[in-house]
Amino acid sequence: MKIIDGNAIAESIIEELASEVGQLSDTKPVVAFIRVGDDPASVSYVRKKQKIAERIGIESRLILLPYDVSEKELFAQIDELNMDPVINGILIQAPLPEHINETDTFNRVSPNKDVDGFHTLNIGKLCQEDESGFIACTPAGIVELIKRSNIETQGKHVVVLGRSQIVGKPAALLMVRKALPGNATVTLCHSKTKNLASITSQADVLIAAIGRPNFVTADMVKEGVCVIDVGINRVNDDSRKSGYRLVGDVDFDAVASKASHMTPVPGGVGPMTVAMLMHNTLRAFKAAQIG
Amino acid sequence: MKIIDGNAIAESIIEELASEVGQLSDTKPVVAFIRVGDDPASVSYVRKKQKIAERIGIESRLILLPYDVSEKELFAQIDELNMDPVINGILIQAPLPEHINETDTFNRVSPNKDVDGFHTLNIGKLCQEDESGFIACTPAGIVELIKRSNIETQGKHVVVLGRSQIVGKPAALLMVRKALPGNATVTLCHSKTKNLASITSQADVLIAAIGRPNFVTADMVKEGVCVIDVGINRVNDDSRKSGYRLVGDVDFDAVASKASHMTPVPGGVGPMTVAMLMHNTLRAFKAAQIG
Repeated sequence: MKIIDGNAIAESIIEELASEVGQLSDTKPVVAFIRVGDDPASVSYVRKKQKIAERIGIESRLILLPYDVSEKELFAQIDELNMDPVINGILIQAPLPEHINETDTFNRVSPNKDVDGFHTLNIGKLCQEDESGFIACTPAGIVELIKRSNIETQGKHVVVLGRSQIVGKPAALLMVRKALPGNATVTLCHSKTKNLASITSQADVLIAAIGRPNFVTADMVKEGVCVIDVGINRVNDDSRKSGYRLVGDVDFDAVASKASHMTPVPGGVGPMTVAMLMHNTLRAFKAAQIG
Repeated sequence: MKIIDGNAIAESIIEELASEVGQLSDTKPVVAFIRVGDDPASVSYVRKKQKIAERIGIESRLILLPYDVSEKELFAQIDELNMDPVINGILIQAPLPEHINETDTFNRVSPNKDVDGFHTLNIGKLCQEDESGFIACTPAGIVELIKRSNIETQGKHVVVLGRSQIVGKPAALLMVRKALPGNATVTLCHSKTKNLASITSQADVLIAAIGRPNFVTADMVKEGVCVIDVGINRVNDDSRKSGYRLVGDVDFDAVASKASHMTPVPGGVGPMTVAMLMHNTLRAFKAAQIG
């Protein structure tokens, strides 16, 4: 069984991007992060994104808004960034406070600066296989892991567990499109699926994105399956100082005995999302240069 | 085996719409058709749509443009209809001449008047399960056939043959969404699919949309399958005056011996598309009234 090392692959992408940005003559790409409130996880995520941007040579700007900011004020801030020609990408760190509508907020971002790929227009483009759109970072990261691990997908059966707007559905659409990786027969399963094991055990590639710790067991997969585990779940672990450890949606040790390839958790899909965010930012920059 | 009678179901919808429009106080819905050139099939389709609109009490306006119209002129015409508050729905009859980009043309239509459901934003909304969008008429018609025939889809395995932007993909997305009909496990197959029969024979509901006459044979389906045949293919038939007859993607007579429900061709999905177009037009009208 080969481990698909997300850290190493993300690192390669970051280095490629840094090399490309290093060759840019004068202006550099700029990404703006909007963070609302002080949720500790959000603080940590945004800081990580800023660090990696810095390594690549992408300038980042952090806009901090108070937790009780009105939707109107938030939108005014987004509008300002949309109009600012210096800004190439805009990322609004989720989760947002309950009084702010996430879909409306993501759709407020100019589609051309929507490096998170959450705008309805970019989701539509993904469905239409229009490559001018931005693809959300997690499904884009999954595709990149598969591509750089030379996993064959054409004519293969890809089973996606989970029908979320952010992972399951876009991953399914990407795997079925007329491209490589892609050209796969795709089955989308979810909480209402009956006889789940009989379907997952047909998978040549299994993408698990349901958020249930160790849900996929060895009896649910066939020999030689490639497993992409998108889940990041906390389970209690008294042996750790933190009192918990992170596990995926797949029972790693058990499934490892049958799989050909597997992503670990952590260190699989996770590190790819920031890399793909930077990839999208550089693309937005290049598109803006062309005009 | 029960025939799913698309003519009868479409007729019910048309009557329901006529009744609803009849109760409107003063202004009536208005749909505009743009036809470019004189392609005989397009002439006939648009005429049919106009007739049904008239029956319902929806006013239709026909804009005829010459085959050599420039994209710029066509877009100016669309812009005018977009801005005209009297117009609720705009339909641009495909196919368009080769010098005109279809995607750009469909995206020129205001999403609020896109009763064909071809705008990228409406495709994105379908993917996001945002019910404010318009769903393309053929997949919407498929869902309506399933709904009005009381076909259970929740937890069932729906296999879609064909990954087109206009039928296969939206039908798959509709069947997997958190709604009824929907909540199905969905497999999307296409020309690159291997071992197709082993997948189609798992289908509780099979939606065939590949444009290959009599492609699905009895050995490819299981007992009790519900078959929705979207294909409309001409095959030579010397016994007919026209020299041809229309058949679906499914070998009707053979598959009928195993199926629980089947749509015929013609008279299945076909008649539904115009009914759903009128449904969308009335919805656009009502949304415009609310403002």
